[in-house]
Amino acid sequence: MSDTQPQPVDLLIEARWVVPVQPHGVALEDHAVAVDGDRIVALLPIAEARAAYAPRETVRLQEHALIPGLVNAHTHNPMTLLRGLADDLPLMVWLQQHIWPAEAKVIGPEFVRDGVELAVAEMLRGGTTCANENYFFPDAIGATYRKLGFRAVVGLPVIEFPTAWAKSQDEYFERASEVHDSFRGDALVSTAFAPHAPYTVSDESFARIRVLADQLDIPVHLHLHETAHEVEEEKQKSGLRPFQRLQKLGLVNDRLIAVHMTQLTDGEIVACAEAGVSVVHCPESNLKLASGFCPAEKLHKAGVNLAIGTDGCASNNDLDMFGELRTAALLAKAVAQDAAALDAASALRAATLGGAKAMGLDAKIGSIEPGKQADLAAVRLSDLETQPLYHVASQLAYATGRHQVSDVWIAGRRKLAARELVGMDVDAILARTRAWRERIATH
Amino acid sequence: MSDTQPQPVDLLIEARWVVPVQPHGVALEDHAVAVDGDRIVALLPIAEARAAYAPRETVRLQEHALIPGLVNAHTHNPMTLLRGLADDLPLMVWLQQHIWPAEAKVIGPEFVRDGVELAVAEMLRGGTTCANENYFFPDAIGATYRKLGFRAVVGLPVIEFPTAWAKSQDEYFERASEVHDSFRGDALVSTAFAPHAPYTVSDESFARIRVLADQLDIPVHLHLHETAHEVEEEKQKSGLRPFQRLQKLGLVNDRLIAVHMTQLTDGEIVACAEAGVSVVHCPESNLKLASGFCPAEKLHKAGVNLAIGTDGCASNNDLDMFGELRTAALLAKAVAQDAAALDAASALRAATLGGAKAMGLDAKIGSIEPGKQADLAAVRLSDLETQPLYHVASQLAYATGRHQVSDVWIAGRRKLAARELVGMDVDAILARTRAWRERIATH
Repeated sequence: MSDTQPQPVDLLIEARWVVPVQPHGVALEDHAVAVDGDRIVALLPIAEARAAYAPRETVRLQEHALIPGLVNAHTHNPMTLLRGLADDLPLMVWLQQHIWPAEAKVIGPEFVRDGVELAVAEMLRGGTTCANENYFFPDAIGATYRKLGFRAVVGLPVIEFPTAWAKSQDEYFERASEVHDSFRGDALVSTAFAPHAPYTVSDESFARIRVLADQLDIPVHLHLHETAHEVEEEKQKSGLRPFQRLQKLGLVNDRLIAVHMTQLTDGEIVACAEAGVSVVHCPESNLKLASGFCPAEKLHKAGVNLAIGTDGCASNNDLDMFGELRTAALLAKAVAQDAAALDAASALRAATLGGAKAMGLDAKIGSIEPGKQADLAAVRLSDLETQPLYHVASQLAYATGRHQVSDVWIAGRRKLAARELVGMDVDAILARTRAWRERIATH
Repeated sequence: MSDTQPQPVDLLIEARWVVPVQPHGVALEDHAVAVDGDRIVALLPIAEARAAYAPRETVRLQEHALIPGLVNAHTHNPMTLLRGLADDLPLMVWLQQHIWPAEAKVIGPEFVRDGVELAVAEMLRGGTTCANENYFFPDAIGATYRKLGFRAVVGLPVIEFPTAWAKSQDEYFERASEVHDSFRGDALVSTAFAPHAPYTVSDESFARIRVLADQLDIPVHLHLHETAHEVEEEKQKSGLRPFQRLQKLGLVNDRLIAVHMTQLTDGEIVACAEAGVSVVHCPESNLKLASGFCPAEKLHKAGVNLAIGTDGCASNNDLDMFGELRTAALLAKAVAQDAAALDAASALRAATLGGAKAMGLDAKIGSIEPGKQADLAAVRLSDLETQPLYHVASQLAYATGRHQVSDVWIAGRRKLAARELVGMDVDAILARTRAWRERIATH
């Protein structure tokens, strides 16, 4: 080694394994991640790290894999307060008789704030460090993520009917612009347009979104081809499949975060790959609502950027990205009729770097690389449920429970320390959650 | 209340909720289960229980649901030592190049003993109290379950080629008879015939099994219609579908535990219902090996007894019955294209009483009813991941992680106490597990 002085850094995390995600499919043994401020400075063998850095804090994870924080690429986190309110029901009964009436009663800044706080606690305890949020009151939602130090892209809703958030098309766009401005330059919270779905958004609104998304340089986060019914309905209305209509409107491009996509022709898959569209696969929601099967392996093979989302807790009923990436890896095989489809490393990549890329954040997060933000999760693999251990990626994808996440950092700040949430009052969160339950259950 | 003396009992478990499974779909609030010896004596409101019983021990579970211990109706538990050895591979590559060579190297009484011990630890920590076991060396397997005080039905293997367990058809039957005799009258361990599958067992062996299973009054535990390939192959060989061949051989009856069943005609589903066949659905194994989709909801609607199994850890990769019943409930909806299919309470029933019935144990276990064995699991529902709580069954099926299981009893004996395994040396289990890993990984 050289005789230069060790470089002072804030934090050195020494781990039994580091799974950087980029490069793909690698588990580095006995490696360390050096962090200074909010950034990763280096990834190198522990022995070299000890010589090269003088850390103010060292965390030793001798039985753990350190992975990039998981990225939940589609969720409606305020709905965490509706977890399990109404299950095992046909879609329209579920929506019209349970979810919408409950929302109508409680929706507002307090509801979204408390729902997001519960969700952040759950996400951190499960190794998730970034959420692609999609719900009303993005101002209050974004403020909550900012307050809690959690990374999020907050959707700016556009829908063709009045809601508690906005009364007219113009008001949706005005409020979107205001919310976007209020988070400009924020270190953790940014925005995306979130037109609800082709069947609830007009050509005119889509045209405005296309122009504004380019101007503001933000993604467009959209439910698309969730069900066969949706595709059929659009065909009867416009003669086009929803995807074709979006092509015509100029929205099929690399800003598009297309969520669900259970109905896809081979031509549409190629078009997604060519245009740089990201597809967010929400396998558990698709199963639970009987929406259909997303051809995840076909998309993966075609080179489409694949991300993974839990969807909201009213249709999942959790924010467990370990569970979700496992379901994605399992289901992809059955749908493709190929046991080699969407392997463990690819599922983990979709749940990290894939989500980051979809949200336009892949230069900042999604992998453990010098220069990137220090968004990290440590997973204890010594539990008997993850022994014996032959391959780290297999264990993470097929055997790990989210409760094995021990520590989490976002932008270099510790958010979970040996399973304890840092700076969050769990009892207060649970008390507020129970209070919402009383209001909602008696409705 | 009467002025009679309270009745002495060994144990009173007071719970926030008791989910008895039978009657169906009920969550009794603030109820208690009185246990004496190995049996449930009563299920009644806590206040009444305190007046009626004088327990030697009281366990208070103020934030928990008490459920019947989960029944894993199809597993190969020695293979827990092969967890994650080889994933994401086509079936034949997986079997021929990885699983079989590894087994050939290590199989024997020590391997199955250590594998079962690791599996029992994992099962107990996840609320499972009974396993339908299917592997070689059932003598050593059964002895291990007996030693550990874990309930199991141990399969007596029959396969048409020589293995480390037996060299000839006659030897398989001789050893089956010996093993059966050695567990006659055992309180926890009993046996079933376990012919491997129609494609590896001759008509002659099936005929002997039919006669012997009747004489010994034991079930017949069989992989059946796991893949389309298996069905096609049999049709080319005998002109019959495997199920038809079994009908001809007289094996389609209420002793039959038919595992997988991803390929079924409507007529076969009716025949299963009429004959009293039990079907064990292994959704995660079917997905991971791309075997096909079991029509779980059609079977359920037709009145077929449905059970749930994890299959072995080489193709799952866990023994998590909470995860498995959730996947069953989710997948059934997508396969049936009906979000109301296999609701939470029905999935929980399949994972308890359904399994018990398949194994011929439904008079003894599978529900919380007076007179039945005290096989019980307590699940803590106060974690933020299971809050708010609107419906107990929904929470158990769609949001609960197995690590929320706090306490487990088998035949009235506490096996898990506040997450600690009782009478098992976890460090020793892990040390043996690592030693097997060294032998297997370097093969």
